[in-house]
Amino acid sequence: MTELETYFPHSRKVYITGSRPDIRVPFREIELAHTLNEDGTQKEFNAPVRVYDTSGPQTDGPLPALRADWIAERENLTQLEHARAGTITPEMEFIAIREKTEPEIVRDEIAAGRAVIPANRCHPECEPMIIGRKFRTKINANIGNSALGSSIEKELEKMRWSVIWGADTVMDLSTGEQIHETREAILRHCPTPIGTVPIYQALQKVGGEIGDLTWESYRETLIEQAEQGVDYFTIHAGVLQKHIPLANQRLTGIVSRGGSIMAQWMKTHNCESFLYTHFEEICEIMREYDITFSLGDGLRPGCLADANDDAQFGELKTLGELTQIAWKHGCQVMIEGPGHVPMHKIKENMDRQLEDCFEAPFYTLGPLVTDLAAGYDHMNSAIGGALIGWYGCSMLCYVTPKEHLGLPNRDDVREGVVAHKIAAHAADLAKGIPGAQDRDNAISKARFDFRWEDQFNLCFDPERARRFREESLPPGEQHNVKQ
Amino acid sequence: MTELETYFPHSRKVYITGSRPDIRVPFREIELAHTLNEDGTQKEFNAPVRVYDTSGPQTDGPLPALRADWIAERENLTQLEHARAGTITPEMEFIAIREKTEPEIVRDEIAAGRAVIPANRCHPECEPMIIGRKFRTKINANIGNSALGSSIEKELEKMRWSVIWGADTVMDLSTGEQIHETREAILRHCPTPIGTVPIYQALQKVGGEIGDLTWESYRETLIEQAEQGVDYFTIHAGVLQKHIPLANQRLTGIVSRGGSIMAQWMKTHNCESFLYTHFEEICEIMREYDITFSLGDGLRPGCLADANDDAQFGELKTLGELTQIAWKHGCQVMIEGPGHVPMHKIKENMDRQLEDCFEAPFYTLGPLVTDLAAGYDHMNSAIGGALIGWYGCSMLCYVTPKEHLGLPNRDDVREGVVAHKIAAHAADLAKGIPGAQDRDNAISKARFDFRWEDQFNLCFDPERARRFREESLPPGEQHNVKQ
Repeated sequence: MTELETYFPHSRKVYITGSRPDIRVPFREIELAHTLNEDGTQKEFNAPVRVYDTSGPQTDGPLPALRADWIAERENLTQLEHARAGTITPEMEFIAIREKTEPEIVRDEIAAGRAVIPANRCHPECEPMIIGRKFRTKINANIGNSALGSSIEKELEKMRWSVIWGADTVMDLSTGEQIHETREAILRHCPTPIGTVPIYQALQKVGGEIGDLTWESYRETLIEQAEQGVDYFTIHAGVLQKHIPLANQRLTGIVSRGGSIMAQWMKTHNCESFLYTHFEEICEIMREYDITFSLGDGLRPGCLADANDDAQFGELKTLGELTQIAWKHGCQVMIEGPGHVPMHKIKENMDRQLEDCFEAPFYTLGPLVTDLAAGYDHMNSAIGGALIGWYGCSMLCYVTPKEHLGLPNRDDVREGVVAHKIAAHAADLAKGIPGAQDRDNAISKARFDFRWEDQFNLCFDPERARRFREESLPPGEQHNVKQ
Repeated sequence: MTELETYFPHSRKVYITGSRPDIRVPFREIELAHTLNEDGTQKEFNAPVRVYDTSGPQTDGPLPALRADWIAERENLTQLEHARAGTITPEMEFIAIREKTEPEIVRDEIAAGRAVIPANRCHPECEPMIIGRKFRTKINANIGNSALGSSIEKELEKMRWSVIWGADTVMDLSTGEQIHETREAILRHCPTPIGTVPIYQALQKVGGEIGDLTWESYRETLIEQAEQGVDYFTIHAGVLQKHIPLANQRLTGIVSRGGSIMAQWMKTHNCESFLYTHFEEICEIMREYDITFSLGDGLRPGCLADANDDAQFGELKTLGELTQIAWKHGCQVMIEGPGHVPMHKIKENMDRQLEDCFEAPFYTLGPLVTDLAAGYDHMNSAIGGALIGWYGCSMLCYVTPKEHLGLPNRDDVREGVVAHKIAAHAADLAKGIPGAQDRDNAISKARFDFRWEDQFNLCFDPERARRFREESLPPGEQHNVKQ
């Protein structure tokens, strides 16, 4: 039995085929019981519910290279360039089926820069997906080893665990041993796009000495990761010398790791960030592989007191300039966002991002709506995430209960993913994504009918719902809950 | 060591005395370490942080009757009547100190019906608190036994556990054995107001036969509970015969237990609800004891599909009519609200409630922003709760991870309370309650200083934060986290 079958009973994978036989789009279909009359006869048939599925082929081995032919057959353009040229790529068609919309809408959103398809031409295993505010709100899960240890097998398990629970992309933030090998294993086994923060590995290559970082060593790291197939890179190219005095006035300074590395580098060398001065060369590399920019918010606020300040919005303006340069090169771009922001200041973040970055998709961490929720920051983040998703954010980076405290374990990953699935779905309902409420309606009907099995199977975590129900029944009645 | 000391190290109870020595208002003061220079010398003194405290005297025995003299000294008027007459009661002064505001503001909000002080004259043990949108957003925790069992000792423990984590009021929803004795024990030991739904006990008295409910038996139950000292009653007097056809069109019908009892009674007898036809007599009883009405939303939506429908808003109009009748009698009133509501429909709930119920305080369950979150409904509810609190809701009823599944255990109560503390605090920050951000700023400074102990002690659940930090460190470093 696969983990998917263990945790999602009465679900099965189904595929819809597109205009060519190798466009096979996965869904998870949840089988439902009939509604019964009081005498036990069938009153009504309840159609199975098909849901968006990120879990991939559920195999232990390397994944099939489903995009290999598509990539081989065509000119090496980015999805943005194809879209601008009026071409609907197989990836776009795949996504249209997945999102239950028209391929032309997908192409149009990509062409306008309002959405991205993170899909490195060296990552053919990746099931195409889209990040943009006209589509389902996505979530990202972070994994990765640290100096405190882990193993390739453990990271693979975390990756598989994340996508089973519904992560739409996975970021490998490894900073420990075997960074290259860990990433290679993840890329060959992961059905979703993979993101990284290349400065982490670049720093490791120079022995952790920030002052020793150079454009050349960074460039080498970019190409190494590009060749492996990383689909999007977080690049903190918007942190400039002029922003640092603004951040010095803050309560918690610079909390982004990438941001503080670059600030330290600029102070040491007393010159502008090499990520900024070499930005066009970075674009050329990114274009070659069709790697999506995730322009990092190195000056994101680390506490409520620093939210929406001049440092943060100053950097955002720079990210907008960089967006236009990247677009000129044919590169796809998304923008990373905060951080810690009280609820009444969230909308300004979304509105300014859309304006300053010309509607490039927004990808936020939280926001966390209070600073006081250590141990419960996944809930804290889900509140802010639901709000900013409703306002137009395209992807939420998950936060786990261990945020601010340590690295998440398996249970934390599950809690973090599910909390943000709830937030993202709440956002989809609020912004009126067509069909978003169908599954809610199906579970509500099951609730009204007392179809307990269907209630469990339709929710985000059937195994937990069933277990909680069992726990709270007296021993004699627990068999009623079992399947 | 008390449980408070166990779970909140470096905290101590402090009291501020008002204009008379028996007005002693509790706070929890969190002691902080100094900010140090690099050489370990003191750089800066960090003042202790005082937070609102619901935990009561932390004693095993019955609580002192702190309001006994205040009640004995004065004419038997309700807080509303006193406020209208221009009197600032000791309760109002206590609350002003507790909320860090002026007594005149408290009096004015009470006089206008925009806030309530649930404090039965037979519950002198209760530490005065206020529910109204100019003040800190409050949360309620539900406890109570069921036919599946429990014991008085277990319910007392749940009550104490709830108030330690920050419940501002506790509802005893017992439906099992020893209802009277359980409630008596809770009332004599609880430092917060206690609410009940008297129809539950009234139904138990007639052997669970809804058709056998009568005004007389209900009235007897009201007086029994009033004499014991219950501070607010949920009364579903707004469910009328004319609303039932509206609810029949719904996906999940009537999900409120009180609402469905009354609907069934009206169908059985084919006449109007006795709660509505005898409403003025109920007011007379409530006035006598100064019990606050919590006008129940018997037609709250049980799923997204039923949110904001004619049944729900029809009942809300009736609750507005009843509010004016209760106010005419000098009774305090709050209004209960949904339920399951998608984010974009929450604001309409708040706006209509303020308009239709003349700004009487709103007390909502959630709202839950999706139907799919069984096992995680506390997070689901925290999203909707944070939003409606920001929009003006005065109290959030907690939801635990067991919602829709079973009765909460001790861990579920803690998770549910903390999730809603986060939501309520997020709302206070967003609506700009003066000083709400002070504690956030203190924890952020501690974070910037790497004062780990202070980070733990300032957050909502220090024990969990500390434990999570320890778990994620390698064994050799764990002693650094210990106190």
